[in-house]
Amino acid sequence: MSSNDITVGVIGAGRIGQLHVNNLKHFTGIHVKTISDVFTEHLGDWFETTGAEYLTKNYQDISNDTEIDAILICSPTDTHAAIIKDAAKAGKHIFCEKPISFSDAESLEAYEAVKQANVKFQIGFNRRYDQNFDKVKRLVEAKEIGDLHILKITSRDPAPPTLDYVSKSGGLFADMTIHDFDMARFISGSEVVEVFSQGTALVNPEIKELDDIDTAITSLKFANGAMGVIDNSRQAVYGYDQRLEAFGTKGFVNVNNETKTRVEVQSAVGINQDNPLHFFLERYNDAYIQEIAEFFAAIKNDEKISCTFKDGIMAQRIAEAAKESLDLGKPVKVKQLDKVKL
Amino acid sequence: MSSNDITVGVIGAGRIGQLHVNNLKHFTGIHVKTISDVFTEHLGDWFETTGAEYLTKNYQDISNDTEIDAILICSPTDTHAAIIKDAAKAGKHIFCEKPISFSDAESLEAYEAVKQANVKFQIGFNRRYDQNFDKVKRLVEAKEIGDLHILKITSRDPAPPTLDYVSKSGGLFADMTIHDFDMARFISGSEVVEVFSQGTALVNPEIKELDDIDTAITSLKFANGAMGVIDNSRQAVYGYDQRLEAFGTKGFVNVNNETKTRVEVQSAVGINQDNPLHFFLERYNDAYIQEIAEFFAAIKNDEKISCTFKDGIMAQRIAEAAKESLDLGKPVKVKQLDKVKL
Amino acid sequence: MSSNDITVGVIGAGRIGQLHVNNLKHFTGIHVKTISDVFTEHLGDWFETTGAEYLTKNYQDISNDTEIDAILICSPTDTHAAIIKDAAKAGKHIFCEKPISFSDAESLEAYEAVKQANVKFQIGFNRRYDQNFDKVKRLVEAKEIGDLHILKITSRDPAPPTLDYVSKSGGLFADMTIHDFDMARFISGSEVVEVFSQGTALVNPEIKELDDIDTAITSLKFANGAMGVIDNSRQAVYGYDQRLEAFGTKGFVNVNNETKTRVEVQSAVGINQDNPLHFFLERYNDAYIQEIAEFFAAIKNDEKISCTFKDGIMAQRIAEAAKESLDLGKPVKVKQLDKVKL
Amino acid sequence: MSSNDITVGVIGAGRIGQLHVNNLKHFTGIHVKTISDVFTEHLGDWFETTGAEYLTKNYQDISNDTEIDAILICSPTDTHAAIIKDAAKAGKHIFCEKPISFSDAESLEAYEAVKQANVKFQIGFNRRYDQNFDKVKRLVEAKEIGDLHILKITSRDPAPPTLDYVSKSGGLFADMTIHDFDMARFISGSEVVEVFSQGTALVNPEIKELDDIDTAITSLKFANGAMGVIDNSRQAVYGYDQRLEAFGTKGFVNVNNETKTRVEVQSAVGINQDNPLHFFLERYNDAYIQEIAEFFAAIKNDEKISCTFKDGIMAQRIAEAAKESLDLGKPVKVKQLDKVKL
Repeated sequence: MSSNDITVGVIGAGRIGQLHVNNLKHFTGIHVKTISDVFTEHLGDWFETTGAEYLTKNYQDISNDTEIDAILICSPTDTHAAIIKDAAKAGKHIFCEKPISFSDAESLEAYEAVKQANVKFQIGFNRRYDQNFDKVKRLVEAKEIGDLHILKITSRDPAPPTLDYVSKSGGLFADMTIHDFDMARFISGSEVVEVFSQGTALVNPEIKELDDIDTAITSLKFANGAMGVIDNSRQAVYGYDQRLEAFGTKGFVNVNNETKTRVEVQSAVGINQDNPLHFFLERYNDAYIQEIAEFFAAIKNDEKISCTFKDGIMAQRIAEAAKESLDLGKPVKVKQLDKVKL
Repeated sequence: MSSNDITVGVIGAGRIGQLHVNNLKHFTGIHVKTISDVFTEHLGDWFETTGAEYLTKNYQDISNDTEIDAILICSPTDTHAAIIKDAAKAGKHIFCEKPISFSDAESLEAYEAVKQANVKFQIGFNRRYDQNFDKVKRLVEAKEIGDLHILKITSRDPAPPTLDYVSKSGGLFADMTIHDFDMARFISGSEVVEVFSQGTALVNPEIKELDDIDTAITSLKFANGAMGVIDNSRQAVYGYDQRLEAFGTKGFVNVNNETKTRVEVQSAVGINQDNPLHFFLERYNDAYIQEIAEFFAAIKNDEKISCTFKDGIMAQRIAEAAKESLDLGKPVKVKQLDKVKL
Repeated sequence: MSSNDITVGVIGAGRIGQLHVNNLKHFTGIHVKTISDVFTEHLGDWFETTGAEYLTKNYQDISNDTEIDAILICSPTDTHAAIIKDAAKAGKHIFCEKPISFSDAESLEAYEAVKQANVKFQIGFNRRYDQNFDKVKRLVEAKEIGDLHILKITSRDPAPPTLDYVSKSGGLFADMTIHDFDMARFISGSEVVEVFSQGTALVNPEIKELDDIDTAITSLKFANGAMGVIDNSRQAVYGYDQRLEAFGTKGFVNVNNETKTRVEVQSAVGINQDNPLHFFLERYNDAYIQEIAEFFAAIKNDEKISCTFKDGIMAQRIAEAAKESLDLGKPVKVKQLDKVKL
Repeated sequence: MSSNDITVGVIGAGRIGQLHVNNLKHFTGIHVKTISDVFTEHLGDWFETTGAEYLTKNYQDISNDTEIDAILICSPTDTHAAIIKDAAKAGKHIFCEKPISFSDAESLEAYEAVKQANVKFQIGFNRRYDQNFDKVKRLVEAKEIGDLHILKITSRDPAPPTLDYVSKSGGLFADMTIHDFDMARFISGSEVVEVFSQGTALVNPEIKELDDIDTAITSLKFANGAMGVIDNSRQAVYGYDQRLEAFGTKGFVNVNNETKTRVEVQSAVGINQDNPLHFFLERYNDAYIQEIAEFFAAIKNDEKISCTFKDGIMAQRIAEAAKESLDLGKPVKVKQLDKVKL
């Protein structure tokens, strides 16, 4: 191990934690030392393949380990804020899955801890690292479509999560649309100042009983005068529908879905093409690698991280405003965050 | 002239009036006898090509002519209601360009006249007769996408009209979006019960001075539980953007823009394809013929007309609610119209 | 009737003759006086709709009529050469459906007659007037793809003709591929100097018994050094497949099939789009109007016709060379025609 | 190292050798022990990243090493046959880049050695492992398009190789089209029995001076009665053009090019989309991993390899026939190989 290597601890070994650990094998100079999860029994076989040294139920074995330089937080959302504070105090660089927390106050506390500790912090908005959305970002920034007027985001999951998951998810806006809220800020380069949401449970009425929705349309007003709209569904039977349109004075740019192949079959009943890639693991496979690459490159070279704590807080605040709009049946202003600079 | 022939008068010989007269040449058994316009001087050359017998400044030369069976109303909107009433009293079948009027009260009065006279009445929502939207309508009706959840309509003109036109247009919603409101009702097969609109003048600030907007996003709530959204712009530099997406339990259907050719040029800078057809005359060329064909077929065979007076009033009411929503900054319920059956 | 009007006789009232007569209704100043066909009994109802004055079994009633300015020859191929000679002698302008004849010698005789008479002559290669192929022609001519290297033409009919038709058709190359041979010359702007054809009856073995084929691939060598290939089938179950690729130093251009709508349906089994328009009547509807418009405009304004007698002869010669290549199993040179200028 | 691990030697560390070594890092249980190349000086930095133990100029250090189980042959074509024989005698499993050799006799000798030694042998036709072509193969095999009638392959490189490379390449057919010849056999599931090639140097006249061509069209006749055509160019300025169409009784299937993104930009000058991925390293990145995965899986599980010695010889024979056809200006039969079963 070279002195320039980075030693990593991973907290939470669910689907997304395992994803990151597996991706880290592609990198040289990144060493996963310890993985923690409150349930470790079922992880044995997978753990063997990781090359990590320790598997623990106690995440503090990671935050207290002075050999560890960086921590990936992939545990349930309600644990994020506390772990961030612990990790920051211990001087670890932090990559945290979205959302930061379910509470704005908790997020701001965690933010203060990170700021005090002066460690790197990245929030896991993986879609920013997709080459499609990244290209749109650059086209919009370069004014290739002139001034942005209208931004439209379609975001539909192939199938709803379990009701158990839904009940702990924080709701559609905090769990799912939060990615789209971040995308809206990312592409527009402007803050969302007001939202109006309508939504209901059209996919599964039981979701309504959990005081949640599965289908929604959210209108956005941006600080720069542009407008936006996001449509969501928990169930698109044809696959993970991740499209975007940005319209401006000089034209428009749109992102179509990625597919497994470019094969078309034409028969007496029409032309048939592939459906979109199934879900986020397939669609954002490369994006997950790119985002974690940025995190470790920023540590190695002491560079700025592009997907910041502020990005995490603002997406969360838009989600909260959206929920309030849905409950009140009217547009709601989004609380702004001028002083957070990280 | 066979006894089964239909004698027609056309009121208003602007762009759309001329369009209909020109299209009528394709039909056998339809005879345009008289054309009226308040300004006739400039029409001479065109009038010569029409085969019509009389050109008049007074539309009552048409409504009073007992030989005339059917009237096409293509004059400015503020004249529609009075002409409808005159024509109905005279027992003429009526095809009227949208919108019926700028006033709900006037529209209802005109409706009563038509109902009393028991004549055919068709409102000119041409887009219903486009083969693309017609196909979507049939797919949705046949439940090919299951139950409708979300309907998205993109409707952008290639270039804004003159400020003079804008000032008399009744505003973006009554003038332009009204087609999209009708499309929303047509495709969904359900009434719009609530709208929320946001909009501003991003294309031309002078439009704002006329108390109008040129860019808008309108959210829709349907009676059947589905949701919708319409985005509008008065200026899409790449051409007339007329797209639609309908999303349901079993899949989604979308309409892309029509183009002049299917030619793709691939060079070192990418693949280049045609822009959409320029504007409504190009895009809805066939639809205008289809709609007028339905009108005359309904007269000849005494059949029901599919695009009704009620359709005209409801689109207008949605436009009014959208304007109110924009002014108030909150969602507005759409007044329903249960008793109008025509 | 103005003195500038053109009086027309139509010889042959089969599918294509009727098509032209119907299209002529769209034109002003073109008057169809007489229609001839060897079988007239079944034409009564249609003839009534044409506005023509006379229906005759004898085409010479047309060529001998001094009031008639122009003749459309839509009769079977084996009658073309004789009719052209009669018509030319009578000083009529001539529009002739492809191919000119089944015999090069007969074609040359007919050419001499036309040359002597100094009348307008147009051969009916309708595809040149399709806006897709016309655009490609202009792009290639303007060197938008640089120098042409490879030209690929796909041409497949939706269903084979009757065996009776096949037996009189002159064979696949003379009947069907002849359009593609013309397209090759049209797009490349160069003569075809050599062909190599392979083909067999894969669609219907009975076609083989008629000494014909239904599936073929023909390689072309152009005078300017470029190369080409045409693939044909008498049966594409998904519709009329009419595509083209032209590849050059600076890029490539391709023509995709036209479809009735731009509607896509996406369900659990993939994205489904429209098949191509069914057959030539649908696909080249506008092209038929454009070609006949050129013919009459050339007469009215005494202009050159772009689709010439030479074009007719050369396509026929390529077809003959293709047949010889198929029979001999080796490439065959195409006889050139330097002195024919019409 | 587990007893199930495979120890590998790699002969030839040019672009493709380095590619395979880099890809092998993704696999567990595959250990590259030794890499050989006649020029090793410039490889130092890259060699350091490989994890291999030895770098040698003498490939026999690999074939003589009893610890080595499998050899990847990535050296120049003229060395393949001798290395295959050495490796086979030493009992190594062999993965060999295409083509096997420039001489049919040499290839057959190498084949005998492999057969005697009873080792695994795979020829590197990477495109078979591309998910697009693999899907087409399965669709054709499953008769989704019915019986195959016509197979069309477009294969164009983005830029010509150096003249030095060309001079040692064995010619366009043996170097480049050989992949397409293999694809023709792979997709059709039938032998190619006859070819007719035309070609010339349109991209760079200097290639002609080397007695080679850079642009070609090759017609194919298959044993099962189907027909095919391949068009090649050494220079497609828009990127690596790798498309395929298979047409049959029930429809057709086509493969479009892969692109980096699905982003479309629509402005006043049309819709612009991405060009194809640049070249084979980008386009077949995953295919290279899949092919090598099959090789090692076949060794581990003692399974049959799908891309065989016979496939290597037959593609080479078609290439030779194509060259002969080009030279003779007539179609040439392809020598068949019934007795080779490996």
